[in-house]
Amino acid sequence: MVSVKPASGEDSLIARYFRPLATDPGSFHLDDDAAALRSWGDDIVVTTDAIVEGVHFLPDDPPDTVARKALRVNLSDLAAKGAKPAGFVLTLALRSADDAWLKPFAAALGDDAGQFACPLLGGDTVSTPGPLMVSVTAFGRVPPGKMIHRSGASPGDRVMVTGTIGDAALGLAILHGGKVHAAASDKAAREALVGRYRIPQPRVALAEIVRDHASAAMDVSDGLAGDLTKLCGVSGVSAVIDLESIPLSGAAQDLVSRGIVGLETLIAGGDDYEILCTIPEDRVEAFAQAATRVGVTVSSIGTVIAGSAVPKFIDGQGKEITLERRSYSHF
Amino acid sequence: MVSVKPASGEDSLIARYFRPLATDPGSFHLDDDAAALRSWGDDIVVTTDAIVEGVHFLPDDPPDTVARKALRVNLSDLAAKGAKPAGFVLTLALRSADDAWLKPFAAALGDDAGQFACPLLGGDTVSTPGPLMVSVTAFGRVPPGKMIHRSGASPGDRVMVTGTIGDAALGLAILHGGKVHAAASDKAAREALVGRYRIPQPRVALAEIVRDHASAAMDVSDGLAGDLTKLCGVSGVSAVIDLESIPLSGAAQDLVSRGIVGLETLIAGGDDYEILCTIPEDRVEAFAQAATRVGVTVSSIGTVIAGSAVPKFIDGQGKEITLERRSYSHF
Repeated sequence: MVSVKPASGEDSLIARYFRPLATDPGSFHLDDDAAALRSWGDDIVVTTDAIVEGVHFLPDDPPDTVARKALRVNLSDLAAKGAKPAGFVLTLALRSADDAWLKPFAAALGDDAGQFACPLLGGDTVSTPGPLMVSVTAFGRVPPGKMIHRSGASPGDRVMVTGTIGDAALGLAILHGGKVHAAASDKAAREALVGRYRIPQPRVALAEIVRDHASAAMDVSDGLAGDLTKLCGVSGVSAVIDLESIPLSGAAQDLVSRGIVGLETLIAGGDDYEILCTIPEDRVEAFAQAATRVGVTVSSIGTVIAGSAVPKFIDGQGKEITLERRSYSHF
Repeated sequence: MVSVKPASGEDSLIARYFRPLATDPGSFHLDDDAAALRSWGDDIVVTTDAIVEGVHFLPDDPPDTVARKALRVNLSDLAAKGAKPAGFVLTLALRSADDAWLKPFAAALGDDAGQFACPLLGGDTVSTPGPLMVSVTAFGRVPPGKMIHRSGASPGDRVMVTGTIGDAALGLAILHGGKVHAAASDKAAREALVGRYRIPQPRVALAEIVRDHASAAMDVSDGLAGDLTKLCGVSGVSAVIDLESIPLSGAAQDLVSRGIVGLETLIAGGDDYEILCTIPEDRVEAFAQAATRVGVTVSSIGTVIAGSAVPKFIDGQGKEITLERRSYSHF
């Protein structure tokens, strides 16, 4: 755990950059070997996601965006599980203690921790000769037994998704240059897509609404098609998705309609960090209204059906399309 | 969080090696985005420590020892805080999904998880072009407000330590070859010291006893001298340590008496994973007896005194020795 060694680079680094973020009494000012999380009788929902330079973020991504992404991908998981953020611990593997990188990284992390009421509780800072790695374990609260699972979807439930799908995949394509970069000639549109890749918008505001209404939920991190396939697999159901109902941003819609990218690229891409959930038919209206009240757009994209087949994706002509690739895998 | 993607290398890896370890109901068979830790009203003590290839373990360390070390360094923190293990999450950064490495790694991790009643709750597996990294966040339970801190030591308290100090530092020196390797001519002694470096013995059995008796505690991971300095710093006290009282193994004693290594190397070395604690004078006997009952040796090595000076180390002639280096720092 983080620790205070007099006259040590590691500790002065922690004192300078991370102690100001440790505002929760259970973090003990990062002066101890561990943090203490008061449970108040709740279940503690635990999620952990790491991001690696060159894999999940690019070497020249600004440090503030790396910090926000590291925390937000975890906040996205908590929200999809119906959990309210309670805090997080951070493991940082660094090649060197570079102030020019650490200062904006810590400032942005603190800013997000405040914005999402998810304080830094502790961490570990280690040196590595390899790529930068930021690993976050985040904690949330739900009343006992009330976490929302991937299992739980039933035939007849509506498949719903927040926000828009595919923007982050397009943002990454733009950063890689090539045809998407060339085609997305509008600078503002390009920046918006890159922003979706670099800084996810976790649907924290929707956590309690998901808990109140969803039969199953997960966040979309590895591609809508693959993630829905997982949710259906664990729930023991299948689904039929209407491709034309999948919500796209104006920029994405433009690139699709001009034939620059296929819809398939968008739904098999990653990094959306939207919430995919199944809502019993009689709750769809209440769910949509509650989401609107907290400013989150939700779209109905299909229906859960019985069976164990992988979900079907139906185009505007009522024809099933075959997906070559459904999601991103590390190995 | 770990996830199940059909036909993905990452998921078949998780299914094959890690699902068998997810025995706790709150892990949901690693089929979900998060785990749920039932609190039963306890405080959840959270600690996180990462180990990096080439920094905390050597590239040719056997995978089973890497697994055990990754978990045990965290169990050691929990024990020092008076917390009973409740579970852990694992982040694994791998260059490739190498079965010959993963199989013994997962088997040993499962074995330790069972032995210490600390089940795998979830994790994340990512690819990295760099060194292997294993990051564990472990959870323990204490009754509300009962975590033992680094702060809390008072003048007059006895400074006590479990086990023996310096063996792991000697084990590392042996692995590096050189004079310690040459001097430790007895193969069994060499293997015992290397074993102390590779596989710490976390004092989990002592957790509740520490909670019942200690005014302050931490585990010794970066060198006894430096770690005591930290504990005193946070407690706002100083200490006087009798160098001859510091418990050494037979092998370490032999190397010191032959002049191969100085005592200073042993108390500024790292990786002991013993518990350093301060015990009020009127509890020392009860503490020692309780420790004996669970099979853990404890030694009194000095006394807490008032003041803000760094702790003094006094040799057999009553002379204070000056330490060039008190602990290990990453930066």
